[in-house]
Amino acid sequence: MWFLRPWTRYMLLVMAHVLAMGLGAVVLQALEGPPALRHQAELKAALAAFQAEFGACLPQGALEELLGTALRTQAHGVSGLGNHSETSNWDLPSALLFTVSLLTTTGYGHMAPLSTGGKVFCMVYAALGVPASLALVAVLRHCLLPVLSCPGAWVASRWQLAPTRALLQAAGLGLLVAGIFVLLPALVLWGLQGDRTLLEAIYFCFGSLSTIGLGDLLPGNGQSLHPGDYQLGQFALLGYLLLGLLAMLLAVETFMELPQVCAMVKFFGASIPVTTEDQDGIVSQDELALNNLPPATPASEQALACRQVSDDSV
Amino acid sequence: MWFLRPWTRYMLLVMAHVLAMGLGAVVLQALEGPPALRHQAELKAALAAFQAEFGACLPQGALEELLGTALRTQAHGVSGLGNHSETSNWDLPSALLFTVSLLTTTGYGHMAPLSTGGKVFCMVYAALGVPASLALVAVLRHCLLPVLSCPGAWVASRWQLAPTRALLQAAGLGLLVAGIFVLLPALVLWGLQGDRTLLEAIYFCFGSLSTIGLGDLLPGNGQSLHPGDYQLGQFALLGYLLLGLLAMLLAVETFMELPQVCAMVKFFGASIPVTTEDQDGIVSQDELALNNLPPATPASEQALACRQVSDDSV
Repeated sequence: MWFLRPWTRYMLLVMAHVLAMGLGAVVLQALEGPPALRHQAELKAALAAFQAEFGACLPQGALEELLGTALRTQAHGVSGLGNHSETSNWDLPSALLFTVSLLTTTGYGHMAPLSTGGKVFCMVYAALGVPASLALVAVLRHCLLPVLSCPGAWVASRWQLAPTRALLQAAGLGLLVAGIFVLLPALVLWGLQGDRTLLEAIYFCFGSLSTIGLGDLLPGNGQSLHPGDYQLGQFALLGYLLLGLLAMLLAVETFMELPQVCAMVKFFGASIPVTTEDQDGIVSQDELALNNLPPATPASEQALACRQVSDDSV
Repeated sequence: MWFLRPWTRYMLLVMAHVLAMGLGAVVLQALEGPPALRHQAELKAALAAFQAEFGACLPQGALEELLGTALRTQAHGVSGLGNHSETSNWDLPSALLFTVSLLTTTGYGHMAPLSTGGKVFCMVYAALGVPASLALVAVLRHCLLPVLSCPGAWVASRWQLAPTRALLQAAGLGLLVAGIFVLLPALVLWGLQGDRTLLEAIYFCFGSLSTIGLGDLLPGNGQSLHPGDYQLGQFALLGYLLLGLLAMLLAVETFMELPQVCAMVKFFGASIPVTTEDQDGIVSQDELALNNLPPATPASEQALACRQVSDDSV
């Protein structure tokens, strides 16, 4: 790719991502289209059977109206009928779980603000709280840095000697982290829940940690739980979200330091034509940065470091 | 706080966050508890009225069974009755939107994988795709760095001269970004949708950009749209998610460079007792880092820079 112009490389990188998205969409469409249609068909059949059997005594549209009300209620995040209808949707543990899902940007959606005041509060709270959480992670990372650098440095030092073995060790490290933060909690969850498979528990833990938070398999939904157990479960879940998210953010930051990412940035960045005035501009910004600001982000630091490395090796 | 031991400071910081979460939960409980209870009561009343009126000709539990089927179908992310029932839930634009919501970790949840293969694919895809997206952002940030540094450097240079004015200018800059990426799209969305308020459009845009993705007010839900319009809307939405997320990630990285964050990290970090062996350990890790790894993350770089600043000023 060395012969391509730099902007072409960027475009190719973006195109590759777009293609990957398209590929994912096509695969999911193939996997999920049939089951979704099947569910739709089942529901329609159940409705038709109901209408056929009892439609005579129901006025036109009464059933649809009731169904619509029930579906809209659920869509707005209010728990439907039955189960824990004695407890409010917004008891304190549930409200705490919702707050944490906001701050970690997970956003399950099983509960959502209905009132205007609630919506405004959520926006302001997230706008202030998410940066605050990021700042907290920055502080905690500094605290945990000595502990965290060891594996990375250990892997990196071995990289020089035996890349293949180091790669395997890095992969092993990654699997260990995944095991502790995804598999173990999933096993616990699976043990506690009677009606879900282990895969569904893993899927839920993964979705929560990655802050994707689809919210389709929230534990406790659809089960008749003792209110005390239910609330305890909410607390456990939000604790898991917080700890897991911290671990994930730290892992992501460590990932951004990997030699491969540096190499990729160097590959794409080192070829940007640097004119004299650009060089001056960059130098003066660097000076400004050193005097006034903390060093810039990983990407620019990586670029600087990679440039230094390539300069040294020239 | 200078008289407190360092670990106490960390504990206080964490406690402050926990208190903030609790406060958010209490406020939301107060704001949202009543509306949610009201919705629940309305649904129960509708159900009771239905039963009272037509219960005579319905066998026991038949209605509950039908409602349960409908609610479960919706909870699994399959679109309910009516509306766009002619199109599959997983047509290509919707599948693309779902894929993008995975990669940006937004995770609306209005669609979710039902099959085992789909769940496994989603996990693998996200596990590979989210880091890839982060790497892409790192590369793009390097590309956009000259453009992005200007406002930050401009604000920082003015900070030395007139802090208050610089703060106002930074706030103005933040509002400008928010206006472009939240308010403008919200206005467009509001104009296109007849049945939602401007606040709801802003709320949806904010939730999407911040990757919280509660998914309760997805445009197009509950409306009878022409299939072509609906699919166009899906494409527009996923384009918005991608662009907006890129902008947000860049804004977050810029935030992490702010002097205040640096000051906070310095405040909490500079007081960690550094023993001789710790110092040696840190120095050798730094040496190792400079030789083998790209510089570390913002937090540690900030700490290093802040330490240098404080050393210089001593």
